[in-house]
Amino acid sequence: MSYNTFGREFRFTTWGESHGPALGVTVDGVPPRVELDETYIQQFLDRRRPGTSKHTTQRKEPDQVRILSGVFEGRTTGTPIQLMIENTDQRSKDYGDIATSFRPGHADIAYHLKYGIRDYRGGGRSSARETAARVAAGGVAQAVLRHLLPDLKITGYMVQMGEMRLNRDRFDPAAIPGNPFFLPDATAAEAWSDYLDGIRKSQNSVGAAVELLIEGCPPGLGAPVYAKLDTDLAAAMMSINAVKGVEIGEGMAAASLTGTANADEIRMGNHGPRFQSNHAGGILGGISTGQDIVLRFSVKPTSSITTPRKTINRMGEEIDLITKGRHDPCVGIRAVPVAEAMAACVLLDHLLMDRAQTGGVRGEIG
Amino acid sequence: MSYNTFGREFRFTTWGESHGPALGVTVDGVPPRVELDETYIQQFLDRRRPGTSKHTTQRKEPDQVRILSGVFEGRTTGTPIQLMIENTDQRSKDYGDIATSFRPGHADIAYHLKYGIRDYRGGGRSSARETAARVAAGGVAQAVLRHLLPDLKITGYMVQMGEMRLNRDRFDPAAIPGNPFFLPDATAAEAWSDYLDGIRKSQNSVGAAVELLIEGCPPGLGAPVYAKLDTDLAAAMMSINAVKGVEIGEGMAAASLTGTANADEIRMGNHGPRFQSNHAGGILGGISTGQDIVLRFSVKPTSSITTPRKTINRMGEEIDLITKGRHDPCVGIRAVPVAEAMAACVLLDHLLMDRAQTGGVRGEIG
Amino acid sequence: MSYNTFGREFRFTTWGESHGPALGVTVDGVPPRVELDETYIQQFLDRRRPGTSKHTTQRKEPDQVRILSGVFEGRTTGTPIQLMIENTDQRSKDYGDIATSFRPGHADIAYHLKYGIRDYRGGGRSSARETAARVAAGGVAQAVLRHLLPDLKITGYMVQMGEMRLNRDRFDPAAIPGNPFFLPDATAAEAWSDYLDGIRKSQNSVGAAVELLIEGCPPGLGAPVYAKLDTDLAAAMMSINAVKGVEIGEGMAAASLTGTANADEIRMGNHGPRFQSNHAGGILGGISTGQDIVLRFSVKPTSSITTPRKTINRMGEEIDLITKGRHDPCVGIRAVPVAEAMAACVLLDHLLMDRAQTGGVRGEIG
Amino acid sequence: MSYNTFGREFRFTTWGESHGPALGVTVDGVPPRVELDETYIQQFLDRRRPGTSKHTTQRKEPDQVRILSGVFEGRTTGTPIQLMIENTDQRSKDYGDIATSFRPGHADIAYHLKYGIRDYRGGGRSSARETAARVAAGGVAQAVLRHLLPDLKITGYMVQMGEMRLNRDRFDPAAIPGNPFFLPDATAAEAWSDYLDGIRKSQNSVGAAVELLIEGCPPGLGAPVYAKLDTDLAAAMMSINAVKGVEIGEGMAAASLTGTANADEIRMGNHGPRFQSNHAGGILGGISTGQDIVLRFSVKPTSSITTPRKTINRMGEEIDLITKGRHDPCVGIRAVPVAEAMAACVLLDHLLMDRAQTGGVRGEIG
Repeated sequence: MSYNTFGREFRFTTWGESHGPALGVTVDGVPPRVELDETYIQQFLDRRRPGTSKHTTQRKEPDQVRILSGVFEGRTTGTPIQLMIENTDQRSKDYGDIATSFRPGHADIAYHLKYGIRDYRGGGRSSARETAARVAAGGVAQAVLRHLLPDLKITGYMVQMGEMRLNRDRFDPAAIPGNPFFLPDATAAEAWSDYLDGIRKSQNSVGAAVELLIEGCPPGLGAPVYAKLDTDLAAAMMSINAVKGVEIGEGMAAASLTGTANADEIRMGNHGPRFQSNHAGGILGGISTGQDIVLRFSVKPTSSITTPRKTINRMGEEIDLITKGRHDPCVGIRAVPVAEAMAACVLLDHLLMDRAQTGGVRGEIG
Repeated sequence: MSYNTFGREFRFTTWGESHGPALGVTVDGVPPRVELDETYIQQFLDRRRPGTSKHTTQRKEPDQVRILSGVFEGRTTGTPIQLMIENTDQRSKDYGDIATSFRPGHADIAYHLKYGIRDYRGGGRSSARETAARVAAGGVAQAVLRHLLPDLKITGYMVQMGEMRLNRDRFDPAAIPGNPFFLPDATAAEAWSDYLDGIRKSQNSVGAAVELLIEGCPPGLGAPVYAKLDTDLAAAMMSINAVKGVEIGEGMAAASLTGTANADEIRMGNHGPRFQSNHAGGILGGISTGQDIVLRFSVKPTSSITTPRKTINRMGEEIDLITKGRHDPCVGIRAVPVAEAMAACVLLDHLLMDRAQTGGVRGEIG
Repeated sequence: MSYNTFGREFRFTTWGESHGPALGVTVDGVPPRVELDETYIQQFLDRRRPGTSKHTTQRKEPDQVRILSGVFEGRTTGTPIQLMIENTDQRSKDYGDIATSFRPGHADIAYHLKYGIRDYRGGGRSSARETAARVAAGGVAQAVLRHLLPDLKITGYMVQMGEMRLNRDRFDPAAIPGNPFFLPDATAAEAWSDYLDGIRKSQNSVGAAVELLIEGCPPGLGAPVYAKLDTDLAAAMMSINAVKGVEIGEGMAAASLTGTANADEIRMGNHGPRFQSNHAGGILGGISTGQDIVLRFSVKPTSSITTPRKTINRMGEEIDLITKGRHDPCVGIRAVPVAEAMAACVLLDHLLMDRAQTGGVRGEIG
Repeated sequence: MSYNTFGREFRFTTWGESHGPALGVTVDGVPPRVELDETYIQQFLDRRRPGTSKHTTQRKEPDQVRILSGVFEGRTTGTPIQLMIENTDQRSKDYGDIATSFRPGHADIAYHLKYGIRDYRGGGRSSARETAARVAAGGVAQAVLRHLLPDLKITGYMVQMGEMRLNRDRFDPAAIPGNPFFLPDATAAEAWSDYLDGIRKSQNSVGAAVELLIEGCPPGLGAPVYAKLDTDLAAAMMSINAVKGVEIGEGMAAASLTGTANADEIRMGNHGPRFQSNHAGGILGGISTGQDIVLRFSVKPTSSITTPRKTINRMGEEIDLITKGRHDPCVGIRAVPVAEAMAACVLLDHLLMDRAQTGGVRGEIG
């Protein structure tokens, strides 16, 4: 497996650095005859595009995607799809002073130690800019899922940003598009906005927690033992920049539960099994059960802050560093569309994997 | 990639069902000329063996491992190593009544829906018995790591079991082997024992949280972007039966932190960079920094309990089910050696991956 | 991808050495609910079993296969299938004198140089004994293909053995099982027998050429560009011990043809396209067309001969070596069932690959 | 594994259609700190560029390569390298009349049957134009091999073109660059030129055979059993458009040999083993021995000829088709640099694979 490639049947390989001429993704294993064009993919890129609100980096990137291969007369041909996004607003001079310094919390020192060379401009390959390519790949996945799993719905939203937490009693998915935080609570958006303004003005940044709700996933997706659906979803989230923890269903809280409390009891519904609760988060033994899939992940605070931090440089000198440049005060916000894209890729991948092994035939109940 | 295979360079494929004649693992990509025998691997299997204390299942399995290939005159030859463990104490009759019923919280219903057939005896392939094969593979990994990374030390221990939590002020690794809970606090072991007795006697089970501390890991391990070291460690843990959450460093708590608090500042030590804190858990940008690697994961309570639970059977009838058989009241306990084994496999895998790409040459500082 | 693993969707990993306690294969990706038992697989093993005629090695191996996992109540469960064959008739003492000598034409010297250690007994891992595991895997593939491609028929036969060549005017597939050469010409079998007797008595061995005819393969199998059906079939054959050349359709003779002669013209038949010739061997652009697939491969003469040959030993001394032990005077004979097994695995693998990407939907003509 | 990806450690994924806006290749697993620029890669592309002599297609493509990622300040960074070649001289109108017709000998009908849709312009994905991307990837491989295996030399040349065959007594590698046929015999080039003129003028095409000579390959490359060096080299050649046969060493002729004739006897030289002959083609048991590696492959005649051929169209109508467009009368010529590129990729891939498993340590003799 290629280390810059994600997936088994539906495979994408991202390429490109933050301040190179372009970045993109090669998507392979796409089913043929699926309607696809640049406009469709663009809508997903626009959701994570930088510079759309005061709460995200002010770097202005149109993130215009171009389809270079694999689509003919508006439909996929089954050959590899190359999606390219040209970089236009590089302000590399911002990064001149980190050419030889290691920003605390950044991958700078790790890349230097591993490769002995790095494109330091904007973090190069380690920049969250790479996630634009993931979102483009996710757009292709969504185009295919529209046909193969029309009832599937993947919804990401923030549940925490530093001291601010979602009040689940006011959970309202309809509110998500209406605020810059992908927050499912219209009434709380302003308070979150004020809070983040304060963080930014105090030259600081803050962490976040994001939740994904996957509705309409059929049972039977997931390939035990080493390609369990929850394992692959967790890996997909953990591979996103700055993610430090992943939870399925009860997550870490499962450590506090007893077996009687944790058991999701089962009754019969009109359309098959009806679970009485969902501590499992929709997955048992690594295989989807037909329940909603629920997962959460945490995103650490942006490491690039203008408050000086102690660090060293390549010469081994101890210095204090202020990270200039244009940065998100909370990278967790833009992680939402990235997580949705990764989830779409994982689910399509598993759908194709299952199609290969079982042909999609399901065991019957009743 | 094979769905029952784990790893890229150091690859193992587990096989076998809980109540079949045998289970085992095929290990490929092992460096040649490494000393290895059955006794060495057996010591790791003995740590997770069932029936060793009243706190684990009473199923008596010697878990005697046999090397069938890949080792000649006490050393590895570089060819695939087949490790076989024969099942001896199957009491399959215990499972007759779940042939057509689905145990709540178990993979029964998911396997049935996906495959339309399952070896129901003891959970078949979905049984945690599969982890014996992982531990055997981990033994091979440890044998290789002894030579390639002599300073590496992987230590797993429980930090929570239901209401019981490790008091970190009393953290004492030396205490771990001295109690049945892999608990690094000798003084607390008795209380944990009483607590778990109570759980078991009340026909219940309980969840747990396990922490892994990896010391002596060199910098430079991890392959961005889709084979990050933290991604692979998280996937390895999440693939273990009943695991519901994984954390690297601060984990989910990172959502509450600010950038100033989260930054691991860097100074120069005698032997290279010296970090002032370890919120990152030893990994930046998916690559190890040379700091200790710290991760945690939660294990849900054993689903097999003798308290009746509502469920359905294959005919779609609603029933109440008591899960007989011999079960761990807290599967989290035996997850400790399994997690250590998985971590050993991931680290060796990444060491070999890095050897392929960079030849192990490191960037210099100072 | 594992280096001892073959295939993508239908994957098998072989393990074991010629004179170890056992050898076998782990088969993964098998569709569930397929009827399978040891008797079914055994019939394929019996066709390549040693000691069945004076023309093959006199080593007596029952090659009794045991299913250790993945099959429950006579049907596959979709979990990995472990097939084990125990070695019973090792006469390792025959090999004592090659512990430190390198047999000319054998892998001895290459394994020594690469690994610095080798199980020299009977060639260890490099022995053609490994092909027993391939045939077992092929038996699983055939069991699945019976259901998914009932019209598929894979027939292997010898077309050359040293000076003896098949007279294509007398091609009669019905004759193949009736002689020890898998020769489709009953009248020629005796002459081939006398010829090989002469070779053996003169302490010599001889090469061979084998042809595979695959009838009833549907169009659309093959995944351009780097998993073309012909590429994978060629790789499968080339991976068999002692194979030195592979041809698809016209093979090497294509170098002599002109475009007008080589074009397989197309007319319409009752059931779709009807090709007027088959220079292509049933594959265009790496994808099956529905025509018969025809391929050939050559097998070099057995390197183990009792005529002394010049060689060296580990100490770098020049010696003359007579290879004792029990050897096939023409390894090409037993390559026939091995090639059939490999072809079955490739075809099933591609059928599952195609099922994943296209769902098996085909473009229409007319 | 991705079906448009080649390799394990050194992996490249090609993308693009013959008449799309661009084509290219994503190269992953490249060691860091290797000098690389567009000029270096361009020299390899120029060797296969169309329109360079009257003997190749008159399509004029500069095949100018652009490096979009993975290289910083003239050296590789260890991140994925994206190489893009823009198409400039598409004359798609030439292909209007094959939008619904299937050219005999072409992949048209196979792609239609498999995918139900195809970019028919110039053959789309099935066009040999894809090999430009392979040559670009080969350039990256060569840049790395210069450092890791400085003595390695890969030389490709034609040994047959229809009725014309290389006279091995006049084999002169120095002559190869001096004629449009990569022919190692200056005296014969004119006769080959006249012969091919005649073929072209008679609206025909012709097949060819190409040989690769790999000198300076160290022993120990090759990973038994399913990633043998000869298997991978054969697969690499067979994956090239129009290749119908591959031979290692004696190739198909091995079927005629006896064991005494075929044995490559071994003596001691000043620098290790000295083989007395090379029937094996430099590879034993799938592992290089240090001898020259010799392989050959055949290329079928160009299917695109202006002589009318019988075929059908999508409506199932029987028609006669003349293939217009600009085509090579002998595609075998331009297969030479493509084969060299593929061999470079395979050898680097295996070098990195070996580095991972054995660390490059070799067994000693003497």
